[in-house]
Amino acid sequence: MFTLIIGNKNYSPWSLPPWLLLKTLNEPFKEQQIDLYLSDSKARILAANPAGKVPVLVDDKLRVWDSLAICEYLAECFPAAKLWPDDPKLRATARSIVAELHSGFEVLRHSLSMDISLKQIDYESSPALESDIARIVSIWETQRERHIADGACLFGRFTIVDAFFASVCTRFQTYNVALPPASQAYARHILSLPAMQEWYRAAERERRRPG
Amino acid sequence: MFTLIIGNKNYSPWSLPPWLLLKTLNEPFKEQQIDLYLSDSKARILAANPAGKVPVLVDDKLRVWDSLAICEYLAECFPAAKLWPDDPKLRATARSIVAELHSGFEVLRHSLSMDISLKQIDYESSPALESDIARIVSIWETQRERHIADGACLFGRFTIVDAFFASVCTRFQTYNVALPPASQAYARHILSLPAMQEWYRAAERERRRPG
Repeated sequence: MFTLIIGNKNYSPWSLPPWLLLKTLNEPFKEQQIDLYLSDSKARILAANPAGKVPVLVDDKLRVWDSLAICEYLAECFPAAKLWPDDPKLRATARSIVAELHSGFEVLRHSLSMDISLKQIDYESSPALESDIARIVSIWETQRERHIADGACLFGRFTIVDAFFASVCTRFQTYNVALPPASQAYARHILSLPAMQEWYRAAERERRRPG
Repeated sequence: MFTLIIGNKNYSPWSLPPWLLLKTLNEPFKEQQIDLYLSDSKARILAANPAGKVPVLVDDKLRVWDSLAICEYLAECFPAAKLWPDDPKLRATARSIVAELHSGFEVLRHSLSMDISLKQIDYESSPALESDIARIVSIWETQRERHIADGACLFGRFTIVDAFFASVCTRFQTYNVALPPASQAYARHILSLPAMQEWYRAAERERRRPG
């Protein structure tokens, strides 16, 4: 059985995609949580992963780290689940979007930091932040237009792309970011998924970070 | 035929991995360069890629962006070249390393910015920078120890992992970073590859950026 080591559900956006995929796969797994705000958390993470980061997927003697590499590994372990789009060109577009999200959007990450249990928080706008938001909305609108007939997700059925955007959906809800109708519908769909509801309930039960 | 849109060879670390893979594959491709330091470069990049970034791989009507997604696409297009390790568990480790590099090491990126045509430049040390360097050295030493019998690269034969570390090798050379022997040998091997030599020669012919 897999073990997934994650951070606080309230604050750890990178922990969410692999957790969400495992839930979507209906794959039983052991969840191990490291509170990122304890004094010994750095040592505990390093003991779990020399890269010093969560999430980590433990599969027997193998440790896979970084959310994207874990998702790729799960896609290979469960080919029938089609966690990436089946068509090679659609898959390349899906991977482009996820890679862009994986290495970019620093301003959005910083200014709209994930904090699941907060609602309707004001945020300070800036051209760089609005540009990050506009880029995400543009991806969502484009993909929804292309794939709306295939389902409510960005490539029709739920894929790794949606798992990566889930934390963005929580940020847009927390900070009450105004969205055009199709994007609003998409975010609402992702947030209403049973696995997301389960993540929310657990996050709300967590101790808030100090300060 | 593929077209690869890249930035300045001297300054654009993300352009290097897919370029290096295409060269390693002996795959003819059209190279299109955008000088990132011209006044209209932003508009030219946006015309090539709505994500506003280089590199971009153009394959007929498909545009694949972000270095990692391009490398994954090439790995799928050329399965016989084994651009990822063949073994699923080794491949998961390889993807973990590349994903860590893809989303992290901000201090190293900033403090030792890629500048191919400079040599023996002093750099300002800091604990955060030394920690980034130590983490890279630790990956290199671990992988070399595991795979030295299979070849000079981190997983034996040349893979996407080496393509991603190539820009780090150039930084370590430019800033004269002290390395333990196995890491030094690895960096020297990567920098001596014919494709890397070709990249260097082209970078040195480029106009330097203003300022």
